[in-house]
Amino acid sequence: MSNGTILLLNGPNLDLLGIREPEVYGTATLHDHVARARATAGKAGYDLEHLQSNSESALVDAIRDARGRCAAIVINAGALTHYAWSLHDALAAYDGVVVELHISNPYSREPWRNTSVVTPVAKGSICGFGGLGYEMAVDAVARLLSDG
Amino acid sequence: MSNGTILLLNGPNLDLLGIREPEVYGTATLHDHVARARATAGKAGYDLEHLQSNSESALVDAIRDARGRCAAIVINAGALTHYAWSLHDALAAYDGVVVELHISNPYSREPWRNTSVVTPVAKGSICGFGGLGYEMAVDAVARLLSDG
Amino acid sequence: MSNGTILLLNGPNLDLLGIREPEVYGTATLHDHVARARATAGKAGYDLEHLQSNSESALVDAIRDARGRCAAIVINAGALTHYAWSLHDALAAYDGVVVELHISNPYSREPWRNTSVVTPVAKGSICGFGGLGYEMAVDAVARLLSDG
Amino acid sequence: MSNGTILLLNGPNLDLLGIREPEVYGTATLHDHVARARATAGKAGYDLEHLQSNSESALVDAIRDARGRCAAIVINAGALTHYAWSLHDALAAYDGVVVELHISNPYSREPWRNTSVVTPVAKGSICGFGGLGYEMAVDAVARLLSDG
Amino acid sequence: MSNGTILLLNGPNLDLLGIREPEVYGTATLHDHVARARATAGKAGYDLEHLQSNSESALVDAIRDARGRCAAIVINAGALTHYAWSLHDALAAYDGVVVELHISNPYSREPWRNTSVVTPVAKGSICGFGGLGYEMAVDAVARLLSDG
Amino acid sequence: MSNGTILLLNGPNLDLLGIREPEVYGTATLHDHVARARATAGKAGYDLEHLQSNSESALVDAIRDARGRCAAIVINAGALTHYAWSLHDALAAYDGVVVELHISNPYSREPWRNTSVVTPVAKGSICGFGGLGYEMAVDAVARLLSDG
Amino acid sequence: MSNGTILLLNGPNLDLLGIREPEVYGTATLHDHVARARATAGKAGYDLEHLQSNSESALVDAIRDARGRCAAIVINAGALTHYAWSLHDALAAYDGVVVELHISNPYSREPWRNTSVVTPVAKGSICGFGGLGYEMAVDAVARLLSDG
Amino acid sequence: MSNGTILLLNGPNLDLLGIREPEVYGTATLHDHVARARATAGKAGYDLEHLQSNSESALVDAIRDARGRCAAIVINAGALTHYAWSLHDALAAYDGVVVELHISNPYSREPWRNTSVVTPVAKGSICGFGGLGYEMAVDAVARLLSDG
Amino acid sequence: MSNGTILLLNGPNLDLLGIREPEVYGTATLHDHVARARATAGKAGYDLEHLQSNSESALVDAIRDARGRCAAIVINAGALTHYAWSLHDALAAYDGVVVELHISNPYSREPWRNTSVVTPVAKGSICGFGGLGYEMAVDAVARLLSDG
Amino acid sequence: MSNGTILLLNGPNLDLLGIREPEVYGTATLHDHVARARATAGKAGYDLEHLQSNSESALVDAIRDARGRCAAIVINAGALTHYAWSLHDALAAYDGVVVELHISNPYSREPWRNTSVVTPVAKGSICGFGGLGYEMAVDAVARLLSDG
Amino acid sequence: MSNGTILLLNGPNLDLLGIREPEVYGTATLHDHVARARATAGKAGYDLEHLQSNSESALVDAIRDARGRCAAIVINAGALTHYAWSLHDALAAYDGVVVELHISNPYSREPWRNTSVVTPVAKGSICGFGGLGYEMAVDAVARLLSDG
Amino acid sequence: MSNGTILLLNGPNLDLLGIREPEVYGTATLHDHVARARATAGKAGYDLEHLQSNSESALVDAIRDARGRCAAIVINAGALTHYAWSLHDALAAYDGVVVELHISNPYSREPWRNTSVVTPVAKGSICGFGGLGYEMAVDAVARLLSDG
Repeated sequence: MSNGTILLLNGPNLDLLGIREPEVYGTATLHDHVARARATAGKAGYDLEHLQSNSESALVDAIRDARGRCAAIVINAGALTHYAWSLHDALAAYDGVVVELHISNPYSREPWRNTSVVTPVAKGSICGFGGLGYEMAVDAVARLLSDG
Repeated sequence: MSNGTILLLNGPNLDLLGIREPEVYGTATLHDHVARARATAGKAGYDLEHLQSNSESALVDAIRDARGRCAAIVINAGALTHYAWSLHDALAAYDGVVVELHISNPYSREPWRNTSVVTPVAKGSICGFGGLGYEMAVDAVARLLSDG
Repeated sequence: MSNGTILLLNGPNLDLLGIREPEVYGTATLHDHVARARATAGKAGYDLEHLQSNSESALVDAIRDARGRCAAIVINAGALTHYAWSLHDALAAYDGVVVELHISNPYSREPWRNTSVVTPVAKGSICGFGGLGYEMAVDAVARLLSDG
Repeated sequence: MSNGTILLLNGPNLDLLGIREPEVYGTATLHDHVARARATAGKAGYDLEHLQSNSESALVDAIRDARGRCAAIVINAGALTHYAWSLHDALAAYDGVVVELHISNPYSREPWRNTSVVTPVAKGSICGFGGLGYEMAVDAVARLLSDG
Repeated sequence: MSNGTILLLNGPNLDLLGIREPEVYGTATLHDHVARARATAGKAGYDLEHLQSNSESALVDAIRDARGRCAAIVINAGALTHYAWSLHDALAAYDGVVVELHISNPYSREPWRNTSVVTPVAKGSICGFGGLGYEMAVDAVARLLSDG
Repeated sequence: MSNGTILLLNGPNLDLLGIREPEVYGTATLHDHVARARATAGKAGYDLEHLQSNSESALVDAIRDARGRCAAIVINAGALTHYAWSLHDALAAYDGVVVELHISNPYSREPWRNTSVVTPVAKGSICGFGGLGYEMAVDAVARLLSDG
Repeated sequence: MSNGTILLLNGPNLDLLGIREPEVYGTATLHDHVARARATAGKAGYDLEHLQSNSESALVDAIRDARGRCAAIVINAGALTHYAWSLHDALAAYDGVVVELHISNPYSREPWRNTSVVTPVAKGSICGFGGLGYEMAVDAVARLLSDG
Repeated sequence: MSNGTILLLNGPNLDLLGIREPEVYGTATLHDHVARARATAGKAGYDLEHLQSNSESALVDAIRDARGRCAAIVINAGALTHYAWSLHDALAAYDGVVVELHISNPYSREPWRNTSVVTPVAKGSICGFGGLGYEMAVDAVARLLSDG
Repeated sequence: MSNGTILLLNGPNLDLLGIREPEVYGTATLHDHVARARATAGKAGYDLEHLQSNSESALVDAIRDARGRCAAIVINAGALTHYAWSLHDALAAYDGVVVELHISNPYSREPWRNTSVVTPVAKGSICGFGGLGYEMAVDAVARLLSDG
Repeated sequence: MSNGTILLLNGPNLDLLGIREPEVYGTATLHDHVARARATAGKAGYDLEHLQSNSESALVDAIRDARGRCAAIVINAGALTHYAWSLHDALAAYDGVVVELHISNPYSREPWRNTSVVTPVAKGSICGFGGLGYEMAVDAVARLLSDG
Repeated sequence: MSNGTILLLNGPNLDLLGIREPEVYGTATLHDHVARARATAGKAGYDLEHLQSNSESALVDAIRDARGRCAAIVINAGALTHYAWSLHDALAAYDGVVVELHISNPYSREPWRNTSVVTPVAKGSICGFGGLGYEMAVDAVARLLSDG
Repeated sequence: MSNGTILLLNGPNLDLLGIREPEVYGTATLHDHVARARATAGKAGYDLEHLQSNSESALVDAIRDARGRCAAIVINAGALTHYAWSLHDALAAYDGVVVELHISNPYSREPWRNTSVVTPVAKGSICGFGGLGYEMAVDAVARLLSDG
């Protein structure tokens, strides 16, 4: 029996992971990362749903629909992180645990990546650990839910 | 016979009104607000069309399609108000009356809510009156159209 | 029998309405606007007191004296809106409903008109509807008081 | 017969000229400066009215009352120059010639003296010439009116 | 025989002390604070004059008139502290000791309260001690005058 | 035989060209501009694909799908130019030539039009030449591809 | 019997008082100021402990160790006032009364002296009264503790 | 017979093209670029005059002298682009077509290259196309003149 | 046999965890967090050294001495995070893996907590997970070292 | 016999006065303005030298050569006013009276015209009086020299 | 016999010179630089004392103790240069010659390295000359002292 | 036989050294400084060429002509340092050693002197040593060239 569902959301351009510049980002695809995140969730007794979308409104819709159905959201919002305030309001209205995830660390890149619409409404943030971050985020969420 | 049509647009997350935190926002849903706006429009002899969408492009499309068909637009753009400049350009190209509406007053909240893409292209703005604002906006539009 | 009193305050230079540039602002004078506001108040069962003054301290005095005597204040503070923080503190100390009013929309004019000392202490703001705004503001106040 | 009236306005603390620090500002009082300004006006066939006030609203009132009665205003607004936007609106509504005057040059002093509410609504500005500026301003106004 | 006179100035809205929100600000009124300040002055052999006004120009006038007559000014300028540069110029021209007083600490409140027109022309500032600050300020002034 | 394909992307509201304010923008529609761009491409031996969309995610999707299929992208992102950082990341991941196009010059308009998410990832930019810019952009791309 | 202990902290370079530029700062040394502060404390029935250190961490350690042992801290943090946020966090965690003290007024000096890490966590601040400030601060603390 | 004359202006350090870092900028010299620009002009029936100067005033003089003699100016102002406002005023006073040209894209380089004195007074701008830009600019000018 | 040593550094005031406000921060002390971090390290075959200090230079010394001796540093620099650039330079010179840790998320607190001297020189950052973050950081480091 | 020489300097593009847009700036040329300035100087017993140059260094040279030879400089530096700090240093080193002159008022135009390198080193400034300003400036200089 | 003593201070992380990245910074250690500085001092007849410390307070202590004992201080404050205002105050109180030294040029690196607490209190600064700067600084100090 | 040539460039107003305010800057003229610089160069076996000009373009021309002929440039650009970006580009294109020189320290003067166009393209900077700086700069250049 499942302890509940964790929703993993990936924003714009994250579908290019593993395809673009494999010598830099490695050959692991988003599919691989999601698989490992799902395995991590499974070990802790949680189901994992996943949505990747380039569309801000699709993500907002998904957050709305997660209400009362998913125990937590792990979100890597891609570039939407830095300007898509509708996402902020959607997450603020969500009643479960929210964890922010970034593959690289946006705070050490261009200035426009220094603002996050997700941070003020997230329980915690994980930045810069590459694909490993997906496992870390799901693992942390599972432990937070168990302690809750 | 109708004096014309008023288009009421509601942006991202406004579908959550009345569902989320009823002790704060009241138990009135967006549906209730729209019903009262429609009644107000009806009393003044106007039809009211309504669209709520979490998608910026759906709102831009709706504004384009209102051209030459709707006499006025009342818009509560939600968080899109603060960054969605495509919405600004769509409203700037629209040839009817535009009224901006907010349930709370964004100018007394976070700094990122202090910029409005709608204000420079709106005839007038109504902020902070809660659900009552919907009736006020439709009523004002009707009177402006009658005086025009 | 009256439901109570609404205090309408007009700040500096608003006595020039209807005199200055009638081709732009219309031929309606401040007197006309006040008369229509009073009529609106009357229909809702409220008395309306009015004060226009070019003096910040006269307005601050009036707000102090309204305490416990007037149920609401509708204020168009003119240019004082943008720097007269004593007015802010006076309104913050007032215990009734406060509504902010502007004939044009200061947020789409010069940068120095983008700060409002009134907004943070007002229930709601109405901007850009010209003289119609006076009726809208009084009407909204009356409805808020009735709902309160 | 007079060619018309020039209104000379002096703002806060200018009544202290000649009293305070005579070794710095000279022994000439505001009275002396006004007398020389009046003589300059007289030579050009103009009457000169003078008001010194520490009160922003008194100055706004005087500007309103000058409408249709005085051909020009010469104004040294003292420290009000830098924040009293009601004065700006009053001068903007005035229909005669406006000349801005400062004894020292505010643009080479503290940063808060680098903003002027008068400059955007004045025909011209004269800064830094000490008491001589009063004569220069009246003389310039008289010549502008004659050329007009 | 008196050692001289200390002028205590209170700016806008300070007449509301003790009336407004007694559970927060205590039941001591401005009258009480002034009485204690006067007693402190008396013990040190000084007379205390007091003026509370909501009007910037009334305060500027009072500062001008204190010249050569009062040995020191203690001023709580209320919200005028943050924008009323005419007050700054009046205090700069005054030839006695100036002490700035605030009941709360404006530097830990809203950003607009972080600028003080009084600080650059005051010998010292006392912030945040509530009503006790009035006694502290008068006591400090008396000791400074005695040491002078 | 074709030398390859050039993808022409037009962002929000550009479908209104030629319809809105023909006395200003001329009577040429987007359709006309695209036709001329296609003719220019054809002369240089290239095919031209075109997409106009009001949706940021539709444009991001199109850029992703152009990878390995189109030799170059010419993009007039409309108002998305100024905030849609997902577009930036999509173009950064694209492996062909990118040219930025604007009908007017955004750098001489409102301040919010002074930031471009496209410029840092474009080979070159063409601004202000009206409809002619479409031909210029396609012609330049063709020459760059031939020289490459 | 003592009413409790007041901890007086002096930060970097304050050991130079009375040694450096006696014609400016007077011949009173920090030792003298501390002696007078101790006398003031004694009169009110309090012990006074004193630490001067050029080391931020020594001050942070002292604040930690004062917890549950000293009733109040009077702190002149010297230049650390303007950047040493660890001091801020230490004072925020302290459970007694905190009073901030400066010999001159940092708000009327260089811009980098306009930020204080101490102000947001202090009950009150005393600036600009020279050595007298030490007595004022201790006296105020004693009165606040007695009222508490 | 010539359709008129196009003036090509190159500012400071552009004489180093082709000499400095040929592996980066190519071996084409400014002479080569000018020759290709002249050929492009000739094909469209225009003469091309060229001036390269490191001197702002020489460029201002040339713009003044082009008045009534040259139909258009193509200008690559080099680093003067970013601060030489006299150049701005000269171009603003010029009565022909102005096109701005840059070899690289200044908006994606150092911040001080993000301001252009030329953009506000140019019909259009071409940035980032390397030497090809010279041909594009002249070709565009010729087409604009023919359409004019 | 150990796989190597991980150095855990805790900056100013973190020794107060578990003592100060237990109802907010929980009753777990820094000692508890370190014990759990050590257990996590042990399970992965690593030793864990720990230093808490209120002194920036003690932390800089420790980072220097870790060179060539510790495989990784996990650092929660407390308030030093936001201004102690010497720490930045020390970490930049360190040749092992660096992970930044915060109990709360500094990016959603006061503005002065929005700058991090650690982020630009860290592999990854973990913020907002409370005491759980210590285990997450050590676990992530161990996995990064194993993958390295 | 002459009382001395006044040097009148006109900067870039001022040679276009009277030629460019006569319906706006009038038909008076720079030649006319200089002639009237010379007549004004003559009446006061002063010679007037004039130099117009588009070159900053020519103006700097002229200021250097005026040392010990000209009693005063009247300078309208055109656009150089806003960035040419070498001019500032040249005027700062000059030992006579300096008066700044502008035909329009730069402080009410574009932001880049709000900085003046001349103001901090000028005795006085005259802005916005059109050609009349030349006579006012020379007249003021003559009176200042006579009073000196 | 010695002409006096020069104190050489090196701040945080400078003990890593020659150890870290020798291929970049060379194999010369801080020890080597100090030896060459001492030799330079010796040739000019001065003794050289040296202190390297990672501790701001140790440097402040050393500056205090140099008073009346050392004729000059040469200081490379490392990263403390950019925020350690206590160092500024200590140097301001020191009565000998102060010279600032940097191995690289902080003004061409990250923005946070663009502020120097040392520059306002130093006679001169030497930046960017690598290890040679130590000799230049000591040599310059010796010559300044001899000329003094 | 010469080791090569060093070009010494002095910008605007530096020809006034020794003439203007000798009680401040000493009686040494630029001629004296150059003579000492030449002697220093001679001792190290280098020739020294010198150019002083008030003209930015003359300096840019000189830098261009130094290419391949002079081994190094020592430049005191005077006020051009702070805005003349053409100078920056010229120095960036130069292939020898560049050293920046200032007689006083611009970073401790007016804010507009805090930007240097030379620093980012210079090997090193020497500021504040007065005339001695000329010798220091030439000596340093000679040693850098010998080490090269």
